[in-house]
Amino acid sequence: MSQAQSAGGGDRAAGVGAPVGMLMTDLYQFTMAQVYFERGMHAEAVFDLFVRTLPRTRNFLLSVGLAQALEYLQAFRFDAAEIDYLAGLGLFSRAFLDYLATLRFTGSVLAMPEGTPFFAGEPIVRVTAPLIEAQLIESRLLNLMHLQTLIASKAARFVLIAAGRRLVDFGMRRAHGAEAALYGARAAYLAGFDSTATVQAGERFGVPLSGTMAHSFIEAHISEEDAFRSFVDASSRPTTLLLDTYDCERAARRVVQLVRERRAAGRPERVGAVRIDSGDLARAARNVRQILDQGDCGAIQIVLSGGLDEQQLQRMLEAGTPVDAFGVGTDLMVSQDTPALDMAYKLASYGGEPRRKRSPGKATLPGRKQVYRLRAASGEFLRDCIGLQGELLEGEALLQPVMHAGRCSMALASLADARRHCQQQLGRLPPVLRRLEAARTDATQGSGPYPVQVSGRLLELAAEFDARDRAE
Amino acid sequence: MSQAQSAGGGDRAAGVGAPVGMLMTDLYQFTMAQVYFERGMHAEAVFDLFVRTLPRTRNFLLSVGLAQALEYLQAFRFDAAEIDYLAGLGLFSRAFLDYLATLRFTGSVLAMPEGTPFFAGEPIVRVTAPLIEAQLIESRLLNLMHLQTLIASKAARFVLIAAGRRLVDFGMRRAHGAEAALYGARAAYLAGFDSTATVQAGERFGVPLSGTMAHSFIEAHISEEDAFRSFVDASSRPTTLLLDTYDCERAARRVVQLVRERRAAGRPERVGAVRIDSGDLARAARNVRQILDQGDCGAIQIVLSGGLDEQQLQRMLEAGTPVDAFGVGTDLMVSQDTPALDMAYKLASYGGEPRRKRSPGKATLPGRKQVYRLRAASGEFLRDCIGLQGELLEGEALLQPVMHAGRCSMALASLADARRHCQQQLGRLPPVLRRLEAARTDATQGSGPYPVQVSGRLLELAAEFDARDRAE
Repeated sequence: MSQAQSAGGGDRAAGVGAPVGMLMTDLYQFTMAQVYFERGMHAEAVFDLFVRTLPRTRNFLLSVGLAQALEYLQAFRFDAAEIDYLAGLGLFSRAFLDYLATLRFTGSVLAMPEGTPFFAGEPIVRVTAPLIEAQLIESRLLNLMHLQTLIASKAARFVLIAAGRRLVDFGMRRAHGAEAALYGARAAYLAGFDSTATVQAGERFGVPLSGTMAHSFIEAHISEEDAFRSFVDASSRPTTLLLDTYDCERAARRVVQLVRERRAAGRPERVGAVRIDSGDLARAARNVRQILDQGDCGAIQIVLSGGLDEQQLQRMLEAGTPVDAFGVGTDLMVSQDTPALDMAYKLASYGGEPRRKRSPGKATLPGRKQVYRLRAASGEFLRDCIGLQGELLEGEALLQPVMHAGRCSMALASLADARRHCQQQLGRLPPVLRRLEAARTDATQGSGPYPVQVSGRLLELAAEFDARDRAE
Repeated sequence: MSQAQSAGGGDRAAGVGAPVGMLMTDLYQFTMAQVYFERGMHAEAVFDLFVRTLPRTRNFLLSVGLAQALEYLQAFRFDAAEIDYLAGLGLFSRAFLDYLATLRFTGSVLAMPEGTPFFAGEPIVRVTAPLIEAQLIESRLLNLMHLQTLIASKAARFVLIAAGRRLVDFGMRRAHGAEAALYGARAAYLAGFDSTATVQAGERFGVPLSGTMAHSFIEAHISEEDAFRSFVDASSRPTTLLLDTYDCERAARRVVQLVRERRAAGRPERVGAVRIDSGDLARAARNVRQILDQGDCGAIQIVLSGGLDEQQLQRMLEAGTPVDAFGVGTDLMVSQDTPALDMAYKLASYGGEPRRKRSPGKATLPGRKQVYRLRAASGEFLRDCIGLQGELLEGEALLQPVMHAGRCSMALASLADARRHCQQQLGRLPPVLRRLEAARTDATQGSGPYPVQVSGRLLELAAEFDARDRAE
């Protein structure tokens, strides 16, 4: 295996970012697939993708990432270089590698629409495919669904308390790599953020873009006044000026002075907002608001940023802080309070027979499942029930067919439509779940503020399976 | 801006992973660059990349990611589609876009070698380039350096307490996207992990690969015995069998039985290890060790995994748990206790003049800086001093030239060499910093278990700058 580094090369594709291929998976997927191949284990498998337990910091999660997951399944094929690399490992037979080279994903997928709230134990994606295909996709499918579900679920907390203030994603620089920044910006927008600073998310997904200026811009100029002037002069649209490079209140007075001069000269004002990025943001915002208002600049908005989390947002809003928009970066894009979910992808059926594992704390439910959600007349969610596909249970079946025989079986919702669906769904959550404070739920008991039950027939099936295994 | 989703397409490159381009940056970089362009601000800028404060959970950090950062700088150029996208935003002049289309990175870079420990406030990368170039690279440079520095610094904590047990990265599925998994595997290996399950990290960087089996493999077979047998039969090398699908001790007895049968038949044993992935791992390991030893299988190793963090590793090892290797996943790959670092990239000089910001809690030091590290005769690190380049200060200058005029000025260390350098460096940390427990340091005061001082001349320069600004 070569350990040479490629920084000496000039390959743009490799240099700007990591090219992702079909080797973005765990080695054991291939090891297991080879055994299945050699033993002819090609029967149909059903896998569920779900989150085992909700983090204490989340009252619900949002299922997001399906569009990228389906793209991956449709594009699933190994190229010659990938097969060659696997051959070089010396672990796989020629027959198996030849088989891999022709392999496509031919399975079916049911899933919750993007932006749908879900709870512990509920399958959000159900894959039905020949065993090898269903197994080989595990690692990347989890990787894709986990990332956007994680970020969207975090973003929703900001959205639910922002009370109409604009929310802008500033998090690219500290997101975990390029894909986290790109898909994270998509997930945050889907969950209700207004825009992102990440240009590629605009280009790839049409997320509206926002941007202000950095401290270095101020510092590079001879003076702060000069920097403000040059930024406003260069712009054909209302700008946002950054106040906290040296002294926030002094900078606010300079903004007032600049606007006065432009008015006097009959020029457009071109200062749409000011941004404060450090210090006691609430106090600075009050002082700046006063300076602007007294300077006849009441229309200039205030943007706050700088290490903000949703708790700080809530405190500032409860205290009546004058603010029009929040720039949220690191805390959102790494989901700082909860940077991972206990998301798993588990076999539920093979060859038509239910399967489950009983590992302590990680036991799964067998069979081909569906999630049923009961709503009140008002639309508010009342309770969920995890049952078997085809059971006559009350409520809406949340898992919908999205892929058949390896091809998308329905047009996916556009990102804009998924965002609207998400806003509607968030509005239907019981109010106690929409708060930042933990509303403890206990999914397995069906008790707590949001009840998730398991159907009697599903519990019977699990018991039957266990009885058979004990007799083994 | 188009909001159509591309899942309907069959484009493999887009489908398998997000293609990363030069638009992976923040919008304001372009807005600021346009002002610089229009005002002819092309003088030389110096930027420092550093971490403002160490998280409470880290006694030191490891500088990692330079290889990918330099690849990015060498590959820096906008293609026609990217320029077209920017043009379509309606924010930029044709003259500026034409300039962007020809722009390359022509600057110089000094950096700490990959795998070097560093502390709060110390520049780990220093960029000198015409202002626009130095500014435009900010977001992605931070994104690349932050990710691997974060993961390597977390990985080192496992490495320092593993006491010779093998450490395997299992974290791909819950890493934040593909790039986090790939570069994270590289960073963990550089910091001393032994191998990864992530195949693409083997292919791209030559990180040794490891893999076992999943619970679904056991479940897909008629019985656990059958699954063990088929896995071992199919392998030409020693395998690792997973014990906790149904009942861990029963599975261990089945392993003993399988090995006995193979011995009796004169076949190679092919069971190198067993893995336990749930429940009370220490207790299960003791029981399994006893069953294996009593069954004359003392050579079979035990691998433990399942939500492990470094504290659990330490407790298990202190308790004498019989274990040969740890599989570490989520906790490592999202740096769960500290999923982000307060890493920044700040202007230190423009046009030969020192610059700084004084934002509350975020003030920076001006000028062209160097980090000097003093060592004892034993090699142990004694103290660091942040001074000016060319100051006659004691100790080794840690920032080394790595790029000149946009090209790598020296061959980068291979990953294997960087890994060796890192191991040597970890061995030179004061013992109190090598523990998991917080050894509180106070970088600005130069006190605490590891002192970082600021040179007198650097403090004078900052005071001079402030005096000038106050008189403004």
